[in-house]
Amino acid sequence: MFQSFEETADPAQGAARLAALRAAMGAEGLAGFLVPRADMYQGEYVSARDSRLAWLSGFTGSAGFCAALMQVAGVFIDGRYRTQVKAQVDLEHFTPVPWPETGLAEWLPEQLPQGGVVGFDPWLHTAEEIGKLEKALQDSGIELRPVGNLVDAIWTDQPEPPMGAIFPYPDDLAGESHAAKRVRLAGRLAQDGQRAAVITLPDSLAWLLNIRGSDIPRNPVPHAVAILHDDGKLDLFVDPAKVGDDEPAHLGEDVTIQAPDAFAGALRALSGPVRVDKGSAPLQVSRELQAASVEIAWGQDPCILPKACKNATEIANTAEAHLMDAAAICEFLCWYDEQPIGSLTEIDMVTELENRRRATNALRDISFDTISGTGPNGAVIHYRVTHDSNATLENGQMIVLDSGGQYLNGTTDITRTLPVGDVGDEEKTCFTRVLQGMIGISRLRFPAGLAGRDIDAIARAPLWQAGLDYNHGTGHGVGVFLCVHEGPQRISRVSEVALKPGMILSNEPGYYREGAFGIRIENLIVVEDAAALDGADDRDMLSFKTLTWVPIDRRLIRADMLSQGERDWINAYHDACRDKIGPRLSGPARIWLRDATQPL
Amino acid sequence: MFQSFEETADPAQGAARLAALRAAMGAEGLAGFLVPRADMYQGEYVSARDSRLAWLSGFTGSAGFCAALMQVAGVFIDGRYRTQVKAQVDLEHFTPVPWPETGLAEWLPEQLPQGGVVGFDPWLHTAEEIGKLEKALQDSGIELRPVGNLVDAIWTDQPEPPMGAIFPYPDDLAGESHAAKRVRLAGRLAQDGQRAAVITLPDSLAWLLNIRGSDIPRNPVPHAVAILHDDGKLDLFVDPAKVGDDEPAHLGEDVTIQAPDAFAGALRALSGPVRVDKGSAPLQVSRELQAASVEIAWGQDPCILPKACKNATEIANTAEAHLMDAAAICEFLCWYDEQPIGSLTEIDMVTELENRRRATNALRDISFDTISGTGPNGAVIHYRVTHDSNATLENGQMIVLDSGGQYLNGTTDITRTLPVGDVGDEEKTCFTRVLQGMIGISRLRFPAGLAGRDIDAIARAPLWQAGLDYNHGTGHGVGVFLCVHEGPQRISRVSEVALKPGMILSNEPGYYREGAFGIRIENLIVVEDAAALDGADDRDMLSFKTLTWVPIDRRLIRADMLSQGERDWINAYHDACRDKIGPRLSGPARIWLRDATQPL
Repeated sequence: MFQSFEETADPAQGAARLAALRAAMGAEGLAGFLVPRADMYQGEYVSARDSRLAWLSGFTGSAGFCAALMQVAGVFIDGRYRTQVKAQVDLEHFTPVPWPETGLAEWLPEQLPQGGVVGFDPWLHTAEEIGKLEKALQDSGIELRPVGNLVDAIWTDQPEPPMGAIFPYPDDLAGESHAAKRVRLAGRLAQDGQRAAVITLPDSLAWLLNIRGSDIPRNPVPHAVAILHDDGKLDLFVDPAKVGDDEPAHLGEDVTIQAPDAFAGALRALSGPVRVDKGSAPLQVSRELQAASVEIAWGQDPCILPKACKNATEIANTAEAHLMDAAAICEFLCWYDEQPIGSLTEIDMVTELENRRRATNALRDISFDTISGTGPNGAVIHYRVTHDSNATLENGQMIVLDSGGQYLNGTTDITRTLPVGDVGDEEKTCFTRVLQGMIGISRLRFPAGLAGRDIDAIARAPLWQAGLDYNHGTGHGVGVFLCVHEGPQRISRVSEVALKPGMILSNEPGYYREGAFGIRIENLIVVEDAAALDGADDRDMLSFKTLTWVPIDRRLIRADMLSQGERDWINAYHDACRDKIGPRLSGPARIWLRDATQPL
Repeated sequence: MFQSFEETADPAQGAARLAALRAAMGAEGLAGFLVPRADMYQGEYVSARDSRLAWLSGFTGSAGFCAALMQVAGVFIDGRYRTQVKAQVDLEHFTPVPWPETGLAEWLPEQLPQGGVVGFDPWLHTAEEIGKLEKALQDSGIELRPVGNLVDAIWTDQPEPPMGAIFPYPDDLAGESHAAKRVRLAGRLAQDGQRAAVITLPDSLAWLLNIRGSDIPRNPVPHAVAILHDDGKLDLFVDPAKVGDDEPAHLGEDVTIQAPDAFAGALRALSGPVRVDKGSAPLQVSRELQAASVEIAWGQDPCILPKACKNATEIANTAEAHLMDAAAICEFLCWYDEQPIGSLTEIDMVTELENRRRATNALRDISFDTISGTGPNGAVIHYRVTHDSNATLENGQMIVLDSGGQYLNGTTDITRTLPVGDVGDEEKTCFTRVLQGMIGISRLRFPAGLAGRDIDAIARAPLWQAGLDYNHGTGHGVGVFLCVHEGPQRISRVSEVALKPGMILSNEPGYYREGAFGIRIENLIVVEDAAALDGADDRDMLSFKTLTWVPIDRRLIRADMLSQGERDWINAYHDACRDKIGPRLSGPARIWLRDATQPL
């Protein structure tokens, strides 16, 4: 199993570790020290070595930070983790702070009314983050000071950095050689009058060099950084021991491999202007450049947009990965329908689903920990089942199953909400509204140039009409055998990035009634130029192609609520599921699929 | 008639006037001079005295400007006026420039490669406009220099400033005394640590002081400016001859009236910080303050948001104005249906409609020139019919009628698209899609906090699905016996202003097929807290209340395309039209209304 169901928090160590940290702070003359959950790569997952927040406080959530002062240690956690934090940290020594409602810039001056020096590790925070904080603390008497990492200094048995192997991602999967990508990006740098760009996001680097890694779970990316020059040459900073035998031939002579500790010196030796991404590069990158008087051109990591717009090869490959994944899920759903009501737990569902995916013999990892929440647990948007929380699926409930796989040819992410026995009408009504929103996005045509923000309402309007809504975005970007959460594309009230052909997105409206039930329906979709229509005007319009082909449970749909267009969409979708997935299934699953895809 | 159908342009004078302007430029050592369409109040309408652009160039459009250089005079016009400008200016002396595709900041350096000094009147341009332009011209060698108005200097028979009477707007219409408004706004200034605010927008001032004016057509606002102090007192700068006998008693002792030429001195005598609206105040306002070292606090005109959120009295009054207006329109529509096909022209429609509104004995003005476009003219979004363009309504066409009235209790704006005889299926299909979008907004519920941008897609999606769209916003703000185009509220891709209860908006999707036909359906709506719903979550949600009650032509609706919800909405709307407007109609019109509101 990739997924575990253990509760890994250990509140017992917190007090002693905090005391040691405070001693180190005192020795440095600091009134405080910031311990973020992030590592220098600012991604969703961190290695054991980088799990400083969890080691210090016990809190294992995927976002947050601790601000350790001499008298108080605030653990800043967002809405998802309000309950979890209380179970994971020693509340006598750590104080949960609701974030972002309370920002660090408000909290620090309250706790340090006389001011003081707060230290932080400049490799673990971005220039943007520190810049905003410094501005907000301007008149507070509080100074932010970059120092060495005090947690690393007191963490005597800190694990070594991960040494996951790096391996080539073949051109027939990537669809473009890394040489071509480097030249393409270098051309843009030259156009902008920039001599080089610093790349510190692992998925950017993996995409650019057509490599993958294995340093962290769920995301097949390497821990490495790079400098791309305006002639297309690239300096890759990575432990040579992680580089496989095939790698030098794959990378070629325009990519030089150097040890990680050569990175700072290489930055200082650059001629500017050098593009640095304020929002993702560690502050230390710009500090090194500034110390050597190298001009900085703030700008987005040049890989982000090209990576987001998948080429035809990537789209074809990921479509195939989705078919394979869908077959595994259909086998699972067939199995599920054969089990007696009351005989299954949430963990049983996760285990069986992972096993079915493993049976493809192509599963490299799951793309994130499966969310398997039945009844009221379904209303916990980021629920992760543990042995302690594990609930039995009871008659009348719905279960939300949100899961995905990492395959060499693509990354999947799918949510289905399933009935457990006989489900009530109210649940079906809500399910149907969620489905209407999901169909609304699936069949939408829209003018080129619009951002996710401009179409988000389409997914929500059917819920809004009943006074309902959901507190998460409608869709996130997804990579190809990369991160299942990828920027910059999103379907969300906060996303101003224009949607472009080739962008893969999730389409996952939901509805959550606290203490009662949850609903989410999710397909992946890819932006494409809309097909020509008879009678249409001459306008550049976009539409979405669906990647995910798994039936949506008809037992939860109130067909009488659907418009003819919505009904036509669901029937056509189910026809396509049968045609595409049927031939890949075992006999029983094929029969199950035939029944599950009957017209409404 | 308020509306005229004359073509007022006179290209013949352009050459001589341009030559005189160039002589004046030469005498001042200028390489160029900017002649905007705007006056110092930055509104949609200008007085005869302020019609400098039309006087100089012949161009009478409602937006644009001329950049007169020694060798070339560019007339910058947007997409609406590409054809009109060619008929109105002498093309041997004036060069139309497509704007905003070509900005002044690009055009000037091309025309003045050696640089030079370009003069402008600092009363006619905002600080924001000049600031942006200066920034863009930074390295061009072109200097922008505030100078006296050279057009005024050569315009020997320039009309005097308008002297329209100012009259009180009674508290029972305004719903709040101007003393209360001044104290309310002063409190906000004090809260922001500001000592005063400069008010240069006539509708802001009209709202704040509960006055109206008659200096320009269509908008019942006075030409006047003011300084509001943080104690609620106000200095009003206006020609005393415009102030009626009732006015001093209405304004009370906390409002002092001063002559317009005292304004600059009063600015210099202020203690800062003084709030100035960068986007609407003349640059000269901030120049006066800066010259006297008065600190400027850039910020929005403090009247804008309070004015946009109408109080209960204003909403009730404007609702009544809409009922009166609807009755006039129903009489007109009844008359229209009695006329033989082929017997009417576009001007006939405008004239009859204005006459019906006049028959209310309450019409103060039309709220804008009626757009009356049949057949292909309907596809010209801002069409204004003249004797030259006046077309006969031919069998098979549709006519777009977009019009409104100014009544003491409210401002109306309504568009109906009517069939002329037998209309084809393609037209009906497009009409129905437009209607679906208009219904989508009408019946929408949405979370508080969203801006017009976030819901704009709802109005367009039915068109998008057929590859169609429209090149204008879905809705603009509307005042109460004020401007029919009022900010900041809009339903538009570019509007980030949160919608708030009390805001009045138009809801006017359309569709335009160039050379063939146009469609637009428009009601006014007002934002309100959404009514409680059974089973709804505890969320702050908003909805729209409809103000406009005139049947939508059933002969153009393809009922088979509507969802049940859409059909229910239109039937309920028509029921309400019958109930609300029927009792106000003549016998024949009441019969007409009964037929026009039969269920679909």
